[in-house]
Amino acid sequence: MTSRSFVVTTACENRPGIVAALSTAIFELSGNILEAQQFDDIETGRFFARIVFDAARDLDEDAISSHLAPIVKRFAMDAQVRDQGRRRRVLLLASRFDHCLGDLLYRWRTGELDMDIVGIGSNYSRETYAHVMMGDVPFHHLPITPSTKAQQEEQLYALVKETRADLVVLARYMQILSDDLSSKLSGMCINIHHSFLPGFKGAKPYHQAHERGVKLIGATAHYVTTDLDEGPIIEQDVERVSHRDTPEDLVRKGRDIERRVLARAVRYHLADRVLINGSKTVVFPE
Amino acid sequence: MTSRSFVVTTACENRPGIVAALSTAIFELSGNILEAQQFDDIETGRFFARIVFDAARDLDEDAISSHLAPIVKRFAMDAQVRDQGRRRRVLLLASRFDHCLGDLLYRWRTGELDMDIVGIGSNYSRETYAHVMMGDVPFHHLPITPSTKAQQEEQLYALVKETRADLVVLARYMQILSDDLSSKLSGMCINIHHSFLPGFKGAKPYHQAHERGVKLIGATAHYVTTDLDEGPIIEQDVERVSHRDTPEDLVRKGRDIERRVLARAVRYHLADRVLINGSKTVVFPE
Amino acid sequence: MTSRSFVVTTACENRPGIVAALSTAIFELSGNILEAQQFDDIETGRFFARIVFDAARDLDEDAISSHLAPIVKRFAMDAQVRDQGRRRRVLLLASRFDHCLGDLLYRWRTGELDMDIVGIGSNYSRETYAHVMMGDVPFHHLPITPSTKAQQEEQLYALVKETRADLVVLARYMQILSDDLSSKLSGMCINIHHSFLPGFKGAKPYHQAHERGVKLIGATAHYVTTDLDEGPIIEQDVERVSHRDTPEDLVRKGRDIERRVLARAVRYHLADRVLINGSKTVVFPE
Amino acid sequence: MTSRSFVVTTACENRPGIVAALSTAIFELSGNILEAQQFDDIETGRFFARIVFDAARDLDEDAISSHLAPIVKRFAMDAQVRDQGRRRRVLLLASRFDHCLGDLLYRWRTGELDMDIVGIGSNYSRETYAHVMMGDVPFHHLPITPSTKAQQEEQLYALVKETRADLVVLARYMQILSDDLSSKLSGMCINIHHSFLPGFKGAKPYHQAHERGVKLIGATAHYVTTDLDEGPIIEQDVERVSHRDTPEDLVRKGRDIERRVLARAVRYHLADRVLINGSKTVVFPE
Repeated sequence: MTSRSFVVTTACENRPGIVAALSTAIFELSGNILEAQQFDDIETGRFFARIVFDAARDLDEDAISSHLAPIVKRFAMDAQVRDQGRRRRVLLLASRFDHCLGDLLYRWRTGELDMDIVGIGSNYSRETYAHVMMGDVPFHHLPITPSTKAQQEEQLYALVKETRADLVVLARYMQILSDDLSSKLSGMCINIHHSFLPGFKGAKPYHQAHERGVKLIGATAHYVTTDLDEGPIIEQDVERVSHRDTPEDLVRKGRDIERRVLARAVRYHLADRVLINGSKTVVFPE
Repeated sequence: MTSRSFVVTTACENRPGIVAALSTAIFELSGNILEAQQFDDIETGRFFARIVFDAARDLDEDAISSHLAPIVKRFAMDAQVRDQGRRRRVLLLASRFDHCLGDLLYRWRTGELDMDIVGIGSNYSRETYAHVMMGDVPFHHLPITPSTKAQQEEQLYALVKETRADLVVLARYMQILSDDLSSKLSGMCINIHHSFLPGFKGAKPYHQAHERGVKLIGATAHYVTTDLDEGPIIEQDVERVSHRDTPEDLVRKGRDIERRVLARAVRYHLADRVLINGSKTVVFPE
Repeated sequence: MTSRSFVVTTACENRPGIVAALSTAIFELSGNILEAQQFDDIETGRFFARIVFDAARDLDEDAISSHLAPIVKRFAMDAQVRDQGRRRRVLLLASRFDHCLGDLLYRWRTGELDMDIVGIGSNYSRETYAHVMMGDVPFHHLPITPSTKAQQEEQLYALVKETRADLVVLARYMQILSDDLSSKLSGMCINIHHSFLPGFKGAKPYHQAHERGVKLIGATAHYVTTDLDEGPIIEQDVERVSHRDTPEDLVRKGRDIERRVLARAVRYHLADRVLINGSKTVVFPE
Repeated sequence: MTSRSFVVTTACENRPGIVAALSTAIFELSGNILEAQQFDDIETGRFFARIVFDAARDLDEDAISSHLAPIVKRFAMDAQVRDQGRRRRVLLLASRFDHCLGDLLYRWRTGELDMDIVGIGSNYSRETYAHVMMGDVPFHHLPITPSTKAQQEEQLYALVKETRADLVVLARYMQILSDDLSSKLSGMCINIHHSFLPGFKGAKPYHQAHERGVKLIGATAHYVTTDLDEGPIIEQDVERVSHRDTPEDLVRKGRDIERRVLARAVRYHLADRVLINGSKTVVFPE
């Protein structure tokens, strides 16, 4: 292979000429655009784009960033360049339930999720995960009590730093992150909410759903913000339920929804398909 | 045809022998059971059944009720017998938007909804419905203002009585019924909520959904109770949306969901498939 | 309004510089790009794009085409420019079943489908459509028998020409078009196939599906080609069915799927979102 | 717990009195019916029922069968009684792809699938399954070549006998069973077809689907019969795809559909919810 591919994502105020400027710059780099998607948010006047292009082997992220710098400056862009060969470094956090953790690990082993898993952290001990194939991934037991929450979060954040993780996935990590940690992980931490947001907040959402007699249950993957369960939504899905389903049936059906919704959200994030737009997201489809 | 079919629905406290008693009684009437579904709610101990059977032409609802009376008494049942040839009498109420109204009328004209429409009521005038084919169905303009709400509801209820309606369908009737009228219509009034309950209550739910950046929108059909938008849910459905969808797009997609969810709920009700179970429903599938 | 918006669609062999050239040309016209989507078909090397832009009020389709001509020539593009204010002229064809016809007319009346309906043709007489609100749309009874098929198709094609229709929608028009007519209407004629292609071809697909005991049924909207039921697919959808469903139930559920799938396909076509790619389509999402 | 629960399934020609007879017999056993579903196939005149009931601890399958024997004889029923505490013995067969195998094992470990896995067989060696957590489940390498197919099937069938398996699951086992083995495993062998039957038969169905430009792909779980890929369908599901999806993307999305469709089919079978009705199934919903 004599070429490599790069993905550029940008967000800025919408003005005429952005696409022309970007595509001309890529053409100047002898880049061949493979995919390009853009979105104008009419309400906010923000413009978002994602461009994938092939370029000669001797180009790299820095060279591209330098070449794009005048455009980035001119349009006051938030811009990001990533060599698609550079895999993201991902830290997984879990608690008692292992279905999301096990599913992400499986998709990673089979190459479906193109990432490096740099560690697994949990407030439960490693023995909790007898049903999960962890292989050589470093496991970190990070116990937590109300009085040690601050220290535990310090450990957690130190782990993010040490492992140079650029994505933290809360794979049913049942601890609420403090505002401080949520802020530090802003835009780089994905949570799966085990119900159809914003329907049922708080504890035991499946039991709430059962109590309410709903005919559909769902799950929501979103970025973590200081506003609990209100972060920008990346992906959602539902399944049909009936009066026959007990709360336990809902929990079981919910596991299937949770793991596929979280896996999709992680996949979209890894491919730079998700751009944050205030309290919402732009998700450029696969 | 020398036979006719009947549907019996019952609800009572669960005890051994109910099914044996009912099926034996139907056998004594020379009935041939075509469909039977039952449900035990383990939590509440309530038992629900729906039985459809063919019987000789000379049987009627009263004769069957008399024959079942000892069982009904013995198990303290709520029981209902309906000759499937006796169509329900339905009153439709609408406001400015006509998509649910038009859809129900179409399904009625083509025989998909097996009912007699005894009237259409609206707080808007007949001219509002230029896009809808009403045929000979009597139309009742029932204007409403904050100060005339009580009188208008009296008119409305008088209309229910006059037309001997046994089902009232709020086909996007955008008025909140008073507690008094809601109580009077308890169990015989179906509403379509133009969003995925209990996600977005209150005004402009599609705009709320857009603001929140959801990836799915939906609609909920439910029985009207005094607890606004919290009545027993009959049916729900969703569709996928994206960041590209404006609030107007959500409203448009919502129309499709609303009309099919409401049509299904009405269809289930007309076939005696929906039994109210406290704040929930049992919906025996088609 | 001092601006108007245009949509440009192009297809050509993929080569570096296409996006740069197009976006620069639009910038030169003082156009402001509102939406842009593109697709590279790696297998065939074909490149497809759809660009929507606002421009000054004095621009028109011809001026834009002239300005783009050198690029169109340079890249050997198939290109199309449409003023979004110029509505397409649509001819609807139906047979005995009216659910798709009625649904398209409803969506047109309410402005959901942005088109001019220039006529309705049918091999059945106008009386067949007692359940459908046709308003002033000219109706053409085009009876057909095996021996008059050729003449009827001549009449049909003459009608297309007279009405200057640029889209023909087979809204459950149950006649198979001849190869000759199919060719003449190539790329401008959409059919709804009343089953999930390519599952069940031929007559009575719902009965075939019932016989086979499927758990899902569906419908497919596609462009008409000389290859019966094998034209490029635009849209598909399914619904769940069960052993309880009779063939008649499948037909009933099928009607709901058919009408929404056809309406979506027509909507996508009207917005120039569908580009034909050999035996397939590229459908740029809303 | 002083009671145990049993599930009775029956199929026979429909005649009046079946439900009365069965429910009376269960009442005589002091059984308390927890769930009962029945279905009359109007076309074939066959009647199907599934009844779950609690009974005293000293009852067992044999005692119940004896008590029901006169009814079974009178109505010429196919009847089956199972103590719900008696788990089925399941043999899993796989080939190169492990996603269905891994998923079934996971659901078994977590108790979601209530069965005993008595063995795993494959025409690939154990090393193939490095990504799968097999634990102590006996693994059987059963290599096959065109010339050893007959012997391999003998080994396979011997394994079924030795392990006293009462269900064989082809978890993407990519070998076509001979008519002889298919017959021997009739009604006790479930396959997952990696496409939406009957759309694409034969090799590489996802590539066929891609070639055809479909907008939905799916999977079908069915009982194995001598008629390849035409056995009675138990469950199906689909997912939306687009022109952007390569054949590899379809394969990836297909994996998710396959594993959930197969898991559901196995779950329904394990709970005696699936009754074979000629070339179709009756699936009593959960």
